[in-house]
Amino acid sequence: MRLALGLEYCGRAFTGWQTQPDGRGVQDALERALAVIADAKIATVAAGRTDAGVHASMQVVHFDADARRPDTAWVRGVNANLPDTVGVLWALQVDSEFHARFDALRRHYTYVLSVRPVRPALLAGRVGWYHRNLDVAAMREAAEALVGTHDFSAFRASECQAKSPTRTLSLLSIASTGEALRFDFCANAYLQHMIRNIVGALVHVGAGKHPPGWIGELLASRDRTRAAPTFAPDGLYLTGVEYDAKWRLPPARRPVALPLE
Amino acid sequence: MRLALGLEYCGRAFTGWQTQPDGRGVQDALERALAVIADAKIATVAAGRTDAGVHASMQVVHFDADARRPDTAWVRGVNANLPDTVGVLWALQVDSEFHARFDALRRHYTYVLSVRPVRPALLAGRVGWYHRNLDVAAMREAAEALVGTHDFSAFRASECQAKSPTRTLSLLSIASTGEALRFDFCANAYLQHMIRNIVGALVHVGAGKHPPGWIGELLASRDRTRAAPTFAPDGLYLTGVEYDAKWRLPPARRPVALPLE
Repeated sequence: MRLALGLEYCGRAFTGWQTQPDGRGVQDALERALAVIADAKIATVAAGRTDAGVHASMQVVHFDADARRPDTAWVRGVNANLPDTVGVLWALQVDSEFHARFDALRRHYTYVLSVRPVRPALLAGRVGWYHRNLDVAAMREAAEALVGTHDFSAFRASECQAKSPTRTLSLLSIASTGEALRFDFCANAYLQHMIRNIVGALVHVGAGKHPPGWIGELLASRDRTRAAPTFAPDGLYLTGVEYDAKWRLPPARRPVALPLE
Repeated sequence: MRLALGLEYCGRAFTGWQTQPDGRGVQDALERALAVIADAKIATVAAGRTDAGVHASMQVVHFDADARRPDTAWVRGVNANLPDTVGVLWALQVDSEFHARFDALRRHYTYVLSVRPVRPALLAGRVGWYHRNLDVAAMREAAEALVGTHDFSAFRASECQAKSPTRTLSLLSIASTGEALRFDFCANAYLQHMIRNIVGALVHVGAGKHPPGWIGELLASRDRTRAAPTFAPDGLYLTGVEYDAKWRLPPARRPVALPLE
């Protein structure tokens, strides 16, 4: 029997989604909790393998279990065995062919950036930070060059293991309010650190270190060494995963709001 | 020389504002950091003595120091010596008569309540939680009875040490969006646990356990034993403190937004 879960977590205390020898991956915490309910070892697959410190308001996971339990046991029972910063939002039986990672059509991520002179404390670990005002119009102009299907090698981590550097970015919007910026991304998939590298490059543009046209040149260069530093994981949230309607999953999108008005 | 600070913190790791023998109060962390910059022991006074687990997007603090330092040292220097979940927002020299607690005219607090079947995980410790839908119109009707100058004994903790139970509540509004409610309070001052007890009572009304008129009866009874349980500190934020303009403080109000759209 195959099941799918919607999951949320604060990434601050974890080494990322993926299971680790020290057991500090979100996956480790989830599989330990599932094992209690299933009374057997359970292996999970997630739509997005979030990095250390990256959060999720909506991660989608699948796993196989022989044990038959009511859906509520896979929600409340598992939640009772999870750390308080990881929680199952919904659970349901799915077609045995469903694959949370390979069937994901698009993944939504949001990066929240606090823009102010002093470091964020109330939201430490939950927002990125830049200490000076940014030219949002210039950043929006620059961002346009990234939307579409491109070779994103210039925004790829050196250790990235993806076979192809080509991705289709269907959305990159920047909202501004009060003392924060929110970057919303939607793409079929991402290279390692791609979002954090894009945010870093856009911040360079917003700070006036490069003109908006630099982003398009950087993209065309496919040269990671020319780009800006990778931004902190703190402000990054996986906010949703889209699947074909045939899988009959609940709407898997939970936008995060800006932290301060 | 008297200085005033604007301070924000996540209350999750602390035993509350007030200094404790084990040194785990926010005040302890701040006084340790100030001592490094001042090179002397510093005693602080805050506008609001927040409970364990209660957060602040804007707390106002004063202290006296012999050491002369640029204002930036009292911000960046102190921040460099604080835990990452406590941060100074601004610092400035003030009139030697200014008292952060006794001169506060009004204190703003916000309680954020997540309303959904499963416990909050991404926002664990940062929002309160109720598991079933609430009748917000009934809660708003009930809340009206509390606005004004009243004896709030019915909403007072048994260990509360205030001399008078009378407070002036000038605002109690309830905003609803998506899966959260936000309660905004403004009063001259509060009794111990007053906000958390009011939120608990309003949730009882929203859940249909009592009609809206019950809140007014409860208030008139001045009997704490008749009220609802005290709500968790997790969703409570001190969001601002108002002072007379003569003190020339920066605008001391930083509203928190609802966590999810």
